[in-house]
Amino acid sequence: MNNIETENFSASRSKTESGIVRIAQAQMPVTTDRSACLSYLEASAEKASSQRADFLLLPEMFCCPYDTAFFPEYAEEEGGPMWTACAELARKYHLYFSAGTMPERDIQGRIYNTAYIFDPAGRQIAKHRKMHLFDIQVQGGQHFRESDVLSPGSSVTVFDTSFGVFGLAVCFDIRFPELFRLMALKGARAVLVPAAFNMTTGPMHWELLFRSQALNNQLFTAGTAPARNADASYVSWGHSIVAGPWGNVIGQMDAGEDFQITEIDLRETRKAREQIPALSGRRTDVYTLTER
Amino acid sequence: MNNIETENFSASRSKTESGIVRIAQAQMPVTTDRSACLSYLEASAEKASSQRADFLLLPEMFCCPYDTAFFPEYAEEEGGPMWTACAELARKYHLYFSAGTMPERDIQGRIYNTAYIFDPAGRQIAKHRKMHLFDIQVQGGQHFRESDVLSPGSSVTVFDTSFGVFGLAVCFDIRFPELFRLMALKGARAVLVPAAFNMTTGPMHWELLFRSQALNNQLFTAGTAPARNADASYVSWGHSIVAGPWGNVIGQMDAGEDFQITEIDLRETRKAREQIPALSGRRTDVYTLTER
Repeated sequence: MNNIETENFSASRSKTESGIVRIAQAQMPVTTDRSACLSYLEASAEKASSQRADFLLLPEMFCCPYDTAFFPEYAEEEGGPMWTACAELARKYHLYFSAGTMPERDIQGRIYNTAYIFDPAGRQIAKHRKMHLFDIQVQGGQHFRESDVLSPGSSVTVFDTSFGVFGLAVCFDIRFPELFRLMALKGARAVLVPAAFNMTTGPMHWELLFRSQALNNQLFTAGTAPARNADASYVSWGHSIVAGPWGNVIGQMDAGEDFQITEIDLRETRKAREQIPALSGRRTDVYTLTER
Repeated sequence: MNNIETENFSASRSKTESGIVRIAQAQMPVTTDRSACLSYLEASAEKASSQRADFLLLPEMFCCPYDTAFFPEYAEEEGGPMWTACAELARKYHLYFSAGTMPERDIQGRIYNTAYIFDPAGRQIAKHRKMHLFDIQVQGGQHFRESDVLSPGSSVTVFDTSFGVFGLAVCFDIRFPELFRLMALKGARAVLVPAAFNMTTGPMHWELLFRSQALNNQLFTAGTAPARNADASYVSWGHSIVAGPWGNVIGQMDAGEDFQITEIDLRETRKAREQIPALSGRRTDVYTLTER
């Protein structure tokens, strides 16, 4: 444990970590028109590339209405047509491409809410199946039960890039400090979170949770949401956000369709960790958090 | 583990938990005049009692300037004169009395930043030695090194009251999600946190951290700070706060000397936990957090 920590928190990170990263987020409308969706992705990737973005992030369920009734219909296996289109865009526009999430069907027929990451060569370098399913029943507010049709993933997901280590989580996952701590302990300097909060939890918790996990772990969090559609069965809060290691909001959109690039400096994580020892000061002699 | 969780999160808590609790917080000035301090405590306890408060909370280092140079001089053993005065006030005014923190000297001569809780019979029912020492060095901001003179505690502290289970932590402890999670898993519905943030970390992190640990664990947090004294070597941010299980701020003071009572309903923790399964939804098959 001590060796891992030294490696992750010390000032002697490898030269793969260069600091400034330009993060594009597409707060896109979700359509049932497949070719409209593909055109939108291409236009977003082109825009991201022309504006020198390093990453392009899409929202949770960017290509499927967020409704359990649609997940089985839209599900495809890893390597399916939407997966392939995203891989191709990553390669064509030379971007790290966070293909939000899409419903994934495995060979046993189980369905997951799955996030994929492609590198600028179009190779899949990470995959995260939403680990904490969204089953809520807020009195007078939002109800939803992903577990009616989805299975949960069981992996803590980090991936290496030319900028350093990133983490990957999906929406409701952000409520679980254990998961974010484990990603931080595995070296994550930023965690990408395709997400779709709603009109109940959005105003109450969206910004608070992104700031909270960022501050608690002294890293960046980036939440990318679909644009709000008041006619949808599930109304997205929008407000795609980037928060920093001091718990600060660096960029945040409103509710409508939008595209923004936020520049972050990953070296800020090191500064924060050196100045306030919220990671190195953990009392691992008193408590231990382990991944099974 | 499953049995513990069922006990803590289910709707079938024992009848010791009755719901409404009136929490008084004294955002008091810190003085080096011992008898002035004792008079202030007596007046605060009398006021809390006359306003039907159930708890009276004092700030971190309420009887000692927050400066490592003073800790050895002001330190007393458990059962010392300030401890005795607080126990007596708890009994006299029939209050749960959170005697903020004071420097404690143990029989080996080590010094701790220690929080004590007395019940309305004047008995000590909990004691928490600050577990995460405050060693920060913010560029262009606050520097402090508690570890120059203090030793850390090594216990996760919860205690039972006639209202249910409470947790106890001290200031910098609030940055560590592991500690708050463990208190929640031990049944805490509210965590008392004598604290003294400063003019650097206060505006950045005070409210965010109290809301964050409250929301992540769906419990109440109550942070009680000293009144601001611009002439002190360490300037307190003040802003004593109570946050709720939805991550909401229920009450918050400004920076100056103040006394407020905040009414909380502990049943809100159960509602929050039933409606958003942020505790029962933890993936204990994937990660485990244990107290050593």
